[in-house]
Amino acid sequence: MFEHTLFREIRKDLKQVEKELNKYVEAPNEMLAETSAHLLQAGGKRLRPAFALLAGKFHDYSLDELMPLAVALELIHMASLVHDDVVDASLTRRGRPTVRAQWGNRVSIHTGDYLFAKSLILISHYQDPRVAQVLSRVSVQMCQGEIQQIATAFQPHQDIRDYFYRIKRKTALLISASCQLGGVVSGAPDHVIRALTLYGYYLGMAFQVTDDILDLVADERVLGKPVGSDLRQGIITLPVIYAEKNSEHRDVLIKIISHQDKGEGEVLEAIELVKESGGIDYAFSISRKYLEKAKGQLALLPNVGTKKTLGKIADFINIRRY
Amino acid sequence: MFEHTLFREIRKDLKQVEKELNKYVEAPNEMLAETSAHLLQAGGKRLRPAFALLAGKFHDYSLDELMPLAVALELIHMASLVHDDVVDASLTRRGRPTVRAQWGNRVSIHTGDYLFAKSLILISHYQDPRVAQVLSRVSVQMCQGEIQQIATAFQPHQDIRDYFYRIKRKTALLISASCQLGGVVSGAPDHVIRALTLYGYYLGMAFQVTDDILDLVADERVLGKPVGSDLRQGIITLPVIYAEKNSEHRDVLIKIISHQDKGEGEVLEAIELVKESGGIDYAFSISRKYLEKAKGQLALLPNVGTKKTLGKIADFINIRRY
Repeated sequence: MFEHTLFREIRKDLKQVEKELNKYVEAPNEMLAETSAHLLQAGGKRLRPAFALLAGKFHDYSLDELMPLAVALELIHMASLVHDDVVDASLTRRGRPTVRAQWGNRVSIHTGDYLFAKSLILISHYQDPRVAQVLSRVSVQMCQGEIQQIATAFQPHQDIRDYFYRIKRKTALLISASCQLGGVVSGAPDHVIRALTLYGYYLGMAFQVTDDILDLVADERVLGKPVGSDLRQGIITLPVIYAEKNSEHRDVLIKIISHQDKGEGEVLEAIELVKESGGIDYAFSISRKYLEKAKGQLALLPNVGTKKTLGKIADFINIRRY
Repeated sequence: MFEHTLFREIRKDLKQVEKELNKYVEAPNEMLAETSAHLLQAGGKRLRPAFALLAGKFHDYSLDELMPLAVALELIHMASLVHDDVVDASLTRRGRPTVRAQWGNRVSIHTGDYLFAKSLILISHYQDPRVAQVLSRVSVQMCQGEIQQIATAFQPHQDIRDYFYRIKRKTALLISASCQLGGVVSGAPDHVIRALTLYGYYLGMAFQVTDDILDLVADERVLGKPVGSDLRQGIITLPVIYAEKNSEHRDVLIKIISHQDKGEGEVLEAIELVKESGGIDYAFSISRKYLEKAKGQLALLPNVGTKKTLGKIADFINIRRY
């Protein structure tokens, strides 16, 4: 959906990014080449490269200039996914066995490190210090988010702010950086870069909130992973935090949340309680607020066609069902 | 030993580096602050910062300029150690329980990622693109070395070139980069930087060969880890490769090498066979050759006192027993 309509204006260029990605992760080590290719073939929406290219449309768009950034962003994202796979002990991602399931923890760690380090080579091509500065800071914060997620796993009574702290670091900051640096690399003026940065941030927040909703309500075949996987891993998301405070059966819910070795029945029961409490609707309303804020930033951008596209992407986030 | 005599001229500055390191890894997340501090307190010789500072002595030495590099180098090194701990399933490092043993795999991975990402912030301070370029390339190669080590684990009949490929990436390149970038940051001319780079490379190769010898012959109390840990983890080092070709009992040795679940008796037997074959002496002779090459580079450096120090460090490598 994203690829076919919303990304129309950059479709050709995204295909080039895909080619570069494949070429770029080729490694002299057989095992590394295999794991990296496996990761790439598992696909993904290439959202971060897409945002960088779209952001580039607001000034002097040059695919050549944007290419290293676009590839680097996807590599950083992929590296964090591989390391999360180790962490979350999830055996499939997007319906395919993960690198960890197929080759083991040790290979996952170094494949992730490899992809991340490869991204640094690309980043070091840019003379503008903002590229490396932004991405290094975001990377640090991404780790902080992950550690926080581990530290708070299976803990009920979390504050909504804890949740926002985590999803900002887990998702929003890298999407924000993609928009910001697309602007930087294409030479956009500061006020444009600022609007792009905030658009990406708000959109990223909405994106993760929606993702967390889908983890509870979407179909396994559509989602590519079992429903309720966050609950199973002890990750407490917005609908659950809401339900904890508002469910009539909050005691049951809290007990299930803290249970580290949940049965399937418990997971499904918790999901039902969250739904009944209105937690899903509440989370959608938060997501909508973020999307309004994202769209508010568009008013500050120059009038190019891509502005409409960014608006449509925001509209799409709240209705996507995969 | 290193610290007390060889590093005399930079001892004060190294203390400053130590302070900066401690301050710099402080994190807003309690868990991250704790794991990072734990890692720092486990110590280590801070060899890479020391080499960067020493290399800086060959031109315009400025601790302020060298500080971010020195801290970044140690962080990269520490990050790779934490990730190796996950990989190698080793429960102690330098005599203390590893982060993994104390907090588990998931925390180790993100602590390593965090330290590495923090190093990138420091690196992005430098205007000279060579700093980021060298360190990103070295980081990629370090991963390739690690992956290669996993791919070849427990495999007998390895070529000496496989071994050199691995230790170059595992150790020599980062030490080489430390010397090189100490030169770069202090504004040294190209021919000086080149000599420092090669000095660091040869020295790093010798250092790892010696380390691999010590893993077979040193005392556990001195080594801070059990003797024969490489063999146990399936890492085939130079003395073993030599013994495989030259031992009278090579069949026994090869069988033990490939055995993934060795008993203590087997490890000790293998060590005996390696010693009998002359593998230790052979490895020492290779280390000596690298050290001669390292010292050869010193002739190309300007005549400052630090030149003598670098020579002494080279002499010390082959006699160190810890």
